[in-house]
Amino acid sequence: MPKKSKLKFMALGGLDEIGKNMYVYEYENDILVVDSGLAFPDDEMPGIDLVIPDISYLVKNKERVLGILITHGHEDHIGALPYVLKELNVPVYGTNLTIGLIECKLREHGILKQCKLNKIKAGSKLKLGSFLVEVIHSNHSIADSVMFAIHTPEGIVIHTGDFKIDCTPIDGSMIDLAKLGELGRRGVLALVSDSTNAERPGYTMSERSVGAKFDEIFMSAVNQRIIVATFASNIHRVQQVIDSAVKYGRKVAVSGRSMENILEVASELGYMKVPQGTVVKLDEVKKYPPNKVVICTTGSQGEPMAALSRMAMNDHKTIEITPNDLIIISASPIPGNEKMISKVIDELFKKGASVIYNSLDDVHVSGHGKSEELKIIIGLTKPKYFIPAHGEHRHLMMHKRLAELMGVKPSNIFILGLGNVLEMDKDSARISGNVPSGKVLIDGLGVGDVGNIVLRDRKHLAQDGLIVIIVTIDSASGEIISDPDIISRGFVYVRESEDLITQIKERSLKAIEDCLADGSRKDWGAMKVAIRSQLNAFLYQKTKRSPMLLPVIVEV
Amino acid sequence: MPKKSKLKFMALGGLDEIGKNMYVYEYENDILVVDSGLAFPDDEMPGIDLVIPDISYLVKNKERVLGILITHGHEDHIGALPYVLKELNVPVYGTNLTIGLIECKLREHGILKQCKLNKIKAGSKLKLGSFLVEVIHSNHSIADSVMFAIHTPEGIVIHTGDFKIDCTPIDGSMIDLAKLGELGRRGVLALVSDSTNAERPGYTMSERSVGAKFDEIFMSAVNQRIIVATFASNIHRVQQVIDSAVKYGRKVAVSGRSMENILEVASELGYMKVPQGTVVKLDEVKKYPPNKVVICTTGSQGEPMAALSRMAMNDHKTIEITPNDLIIISASPIPGNEKMISKVIDELFKKGASVIYNSLDDVHVSGHGKSEELKIIIGLTKPKYFIPAHGEHRHLMMHKRLAELMGVKPSNIFILGLGNVLEMDKDSARISGNVPSGKVLIDGLGVGDVGNIVLRDRKHLAQDGLIVIIVTIDSASGEIISDPDIISRGFVYVRESEDLITQIKERSLKAIEDCLADGSRKDWGAMKVAIRSQLNAFLYQKTKRSPMLLPVIVEV
Repeated sequence: MPKKSKLKFMALGGLDEIGKNMYVYEYENDILVVDSGLAFPDDEMPGIDLVIPDISYLVKNKERVLGILITHGHEDHIGALPYVLKELNVPVYGTNLTIGLIECKLREHGILKQCKLNKIKAGSKLKLGSFLVEVIHSNHSIADSVMFAIHTPEGIVIHTGDFKIDCTPIDGSMIDLAKLGELGRRGVLALVSDSTNAERPGYTMSERSVGAKFDEIFMSAVNQRIIVATFASNIHRVQQVIDSAVKYGRKVAVSGRSMENILEVASELGYMKVPQGTVVKLDEVKKYPPNKVVICTTGSQGEPMAALSRMAMNDHKTIEITPNDLIIISASPIPGNEKMISKVIDELFKKGASVIYNSLDDVHVSGHGKSEELKIIIGLTKPKYFIPAHGEHRHLMMHKRLAELMGVKPSNIFILGLGNVLEMDKDSARISGNVPSGKVLIDGLGVGDVGNIVLRDRKHLAQDGLIVIIVTIDSASGEIISDPDIISRGFVYVRESEDLITQIKERSLKAIEDCLADGSRKDWGAMKVAIRSQLNAFLYQKTKRSPMLLPVIVEV
Repeated sequence: MPKKSKLKFMALGGLDEIGKNMYVYEYENDILVVDSGLAFPDDEMPGIDLVIPDISYLVKNKERVLGILITHGHEDHIGALPYVLKELNVPVYGTNLTIGLIECKLREHGILKQCKLNKIKAGSKLKLGSFLVEVIHSNHSIADSVMFAIHTPEGIVIHTGDFKIDCTPIDGSMIDLAKLGELGRRGVLALVSDSTNAERPGYTMSERSVGAKFDEIFMSAVNQRIIVATFASNIHRVQQVIDSAVKYGRKVAVSGRSMENILEVASELGYMKVPQGTVVKLDEVKKYPPNKVVICTTGSQGEPMAALSRMAMNDHKTIEITPNDLIIISASPIPGNEKMISKVIDELFKKGASVIYNSLDDVHVSGHGKSEELKIIIGLTKPKYFIPAHGEHRHLMMHKRLAELMGVKPSNIFILGLGNVLEMDKDSARISGNVPSGKVLIDGLGVGDVGNIVLRDRKHLAQDGLIVIIVTIDSASGEIISDPDIISRGFVYVRESEDLITQIKERSLKAIEDCLADGSRKDWGAMKVAIRSQLNAFLYQKTKRSPMLLPVIVEV
C-alpha cells in the first residue's frame, strides 16, 4: 500500500517571538506560504537594521512554492517580502490595502515591476494547486485584515493572522464569525491562531472607544494645539483623529514619512474619508491658530529618528513644541521600547507641553484579541488540532491553556518551535522532522553577512573598546625596530591615561622580547599570543576591563 | 543691614531620573547630605557598570559637610557610598538595617574600618550643626525606612525618601502619619517627596496582601516545588515566603549571593523571624521531596548572571528546572528590563515549568505610594514650598499637579533640575544658581575615566565594527613598501568577504598614491585623512555601513 500523503505545517518565523511571521503549508508537491514579515533587532544584535526569516527551505524547493498569502499589511507580516521575492519570485496574494502597502515597499527596493502581486477579497476563494483558500474578513489595528481557511485534501486549516473581535470597527464590518462557525460545523482539522494577548484576561476594547476619547479630549482642549502620535499603519486611528478634527473645526497635518505614505495609499484606495480642505501641509500649520490644528505624527514608540522624537528634541524642521501643545501618545510601548518612549515624554514635559500617554487614559486599544476572544474563535471553529502561533513562548503556552479549557485534547495541541514540521491527517498529527530556520540579519545592504562572530566582536568592542598594538620588526635580524605604537578606541580617554599607555607599550615590548629570547623568532603568531596574554592579564588587573587586543606585527 | 542667610536645597541625583539619589541641604557654613545612591547604566552607556552622582561640589566644600543621612538601604540610596566616602570621609547616619547593609558594602570595598557609621532610630533626634534632624518611621519595600524632618533656622523641611502608606506592614508598624500631621500643624517650610508613582491613580496595596496570595498559591501547589524570585532587599517579602513555607510544611533554601547576604544581615539584626530548622542549604534541597521545599532566589529582573536566569538557562550549579516547578516572579520589571525578564520566563516555560509572573496575579506590590497616598502626605504636612523628587521629569510634573490639587500655590512648587540651587526662607524661594552635577561612570575599577568620547567610540564600534589599515612606507624614499594590511572586526565576516577586503586594500593604496603624487609626501596626517575619506565613501556605497576606520602608517 503506498504511503498516504499528509498535510505538513511549519513556521519559519513567528513562534517564540513577536515578529517575522512566516508559516508554510505543504501537501505533496505543493507549498503555500502565509505572510513574510520582519522582526526588529534586539540588544544582542548591535548595528543590525532588520531581521528576516531563514528561507533556505523555500529556496531549495523553489518550483514547488505556489505563492505567498498575506494576512495584513503590518511590517511583521510583509516586511521581509523585498528580500524574499528577490530569491523567490512567486505570486503574492493580499487584499487591496495590503497590496497597496506592499507596492510602496517593493517600489522603494526597485523591484515592483518584476513582482507578481494579486489582489484578493474577503469572501472570495482562491485555488492554488491542491489548496483552496477562502479569504475571511477580520478585525485588527490595520484595515483590510483577513484570515484564511485553507481547504486541503486532509481537511480545513484556519489561519487567523492577527485579529481581534471588534463589533464596532471603524470600517463598519465585524470579523466574519458566522463563516468561522460554519467552517466549525463542517469540521476544522486545525486552527493556527494569534497568541499575542493570550496572557491577558477579558476582551480588547473596540477601536471606536478611542474615537470617543479623542472627542472628549478635543472638546476640552479649547485653546491648545493637539499633536497625536500613533502607528502610521493604523489608518482607522488616523481616521478617528480626522473625524474629531472635523467635528471640532481643526485642520489636520501629518508628519513623518511613513505617515505620509500610508495616508496617500489609504486615501487613494478609498480607505479614508477626508472631507475636502481638512488636510493641510505641515508647513502651512503656522498659518492657523494653534487651536485650529491637529498634527498627526509618527514616533509613538520613541524611535529617535521619527517625527515626534525630533519635535521633543528640538530637531524637527517645521514643528516646535510649546507649552500650548497637548500631545496624545495613542499607542502602547512595544516591549523593549519603554525607555525610548519615556525619554520622549519627559522631553515633551520639559518643554511645558501636556502629554496624555497612559493606557489608563483610553487613548489606545490593542489590535489583538484577549483571552475571551481567543476562546470564542476556538469555540466557533472546534478544531481537531490546535497550534498557537504569533507569540513568545509564554504566549503560546497561555494560549494552549485556553484551548484546553475549550475542550481541545491536550495531546492535540502543538507548541511548535521554528522549523518543526507538523504532519497531520484526519487521524493523527506528529512532529516528523525539521527544516532549516533562523534569523537572517540585515545590516545596511548586507543580507546575512553579519553572523555570530561579527556580533560577538561588536558586543566585545561595545563593552570595553579596543587597543591596537603595532610592532615593527626587522625581518633579517629579527630585532624590534621601534617602540610599539598604541592606538586605543572606546577603552579609556587616552589623554588622561598616558601612564597606562606607557605601561601597555612596555608590557608589549617585554612580551616580544621574551618571545625573541625564547627562540620564537619569526613566529609572529606566537608573538601575538604572547602580547595578548601579557596585556590581557595586566589590563584586567589594572582596570577590571578586557578590551579587544589587536597586535599587528609589521615585518620589514 | 547684613544679608540674611537662607536655606539652600539642591539635588545631585534623583531628579529627571530614577536612581542615584543624593540631595543636599545647606545653611550658612553647614552642609547636610541625604542619601548617596547609584544608578544603572542605560543603552547609551555600553560597558558601564554603574553610575554615581558628580560630587565635585561636596568635595570642594569638604570641611563643611557634616554628614550623610540615609533614608533606607536600597542601592539607589546607598550604592554610591563606597565611592563617595573615599573622597569625603564624613559620618553616615542610618537605621539599624540600613547601616547593616552599608557595612556589607563597605567591607566588600575594603574601607569599612575607616568609615564613620552611626545608627539612628525612628523617633529620635540628631543635632548636626545648625540642623536638628528628626527621624520619622516610614513604610517601603525594605524594612527600617525613614523620613527626615530637618529643622533649620528657616523652618522645617520634610524629606520623605521612598515611601508608601502601609496600614498593615509586615514589621507591624505603620508610617508615622501622626508625626507628619503634628509637624504640619507647627508649619512646614518645604516638602521634598517621592514622585515614583505620581502618575498612578489610587493606592498601593499593602505588602501583606502578597502574603495572602502566597498562602493561596502554596495551598494549591500540592505536588510542586515552589521557586520564588524577588528583590533580595525586600526582606518582608522573603519573610512572607518563609511564613507561607512554615504554614504549608516546606523547607526554605535561598539562592543568589545578595539574597544570602541580606538574609544573614537581616536575621542577625533581628529583622526576620525564621523558626529553627526552616532554612536549609541549597544543596540539601534534593534531600527533600519537591513539595516540601521552597527556593527563594534573586533574578526577578532577568539579570543574566543572577540565580533565576542561570536556572532558566540550565546553568545553575545546584538547581535544575523541571515541569514540576512552580515559579513565582514576585516583582515588576524595572523599565528597561522587560525583555530580559520575558526571556527568562519563556525559558522557564520551555522547560515545562509553571510560571506566575503577571502583576494581575497579585504576587507583587509596589514600594511607592500612588497619587492618593502622595496627596495624604501633602495634606498632612501642608508645606509652603513643594519640591517633587525621586522621579523622571513626567513623574515630577504629575506630582506637581497633585500638589496643586492639594492647594499648594503653583508658584511655590519647584520642578528643579540636577544642580539647581533653590534658596528659601519664610518669605520667598527662588532658584539662585547652579552647582556642578552629572553622571560619573564606573567601568571596572575606573571611576570617571570613561567619558563621552569613549562612549561615542564604543557605540560606533558596536554599530559597524572597525577596519585597521596598516601601510608601511619607506621614510627615506617615501615609497610604499608593501601592500596594506587590513584587519577588520565586527564589520563583515572576513572569510566570506575576500573581494571586499581586496577592494579596501586597493582603495587605500590608491588614496596613498594620490597623496604621494600630490606632493603630500611625509604628511602622514593628510594620508590618513585621504584613506579615511576614500574608504568611507566606498564602504558606505557598497554596504551602507560606516565602520570605524583606523589607518596606521608605519615609517621605516
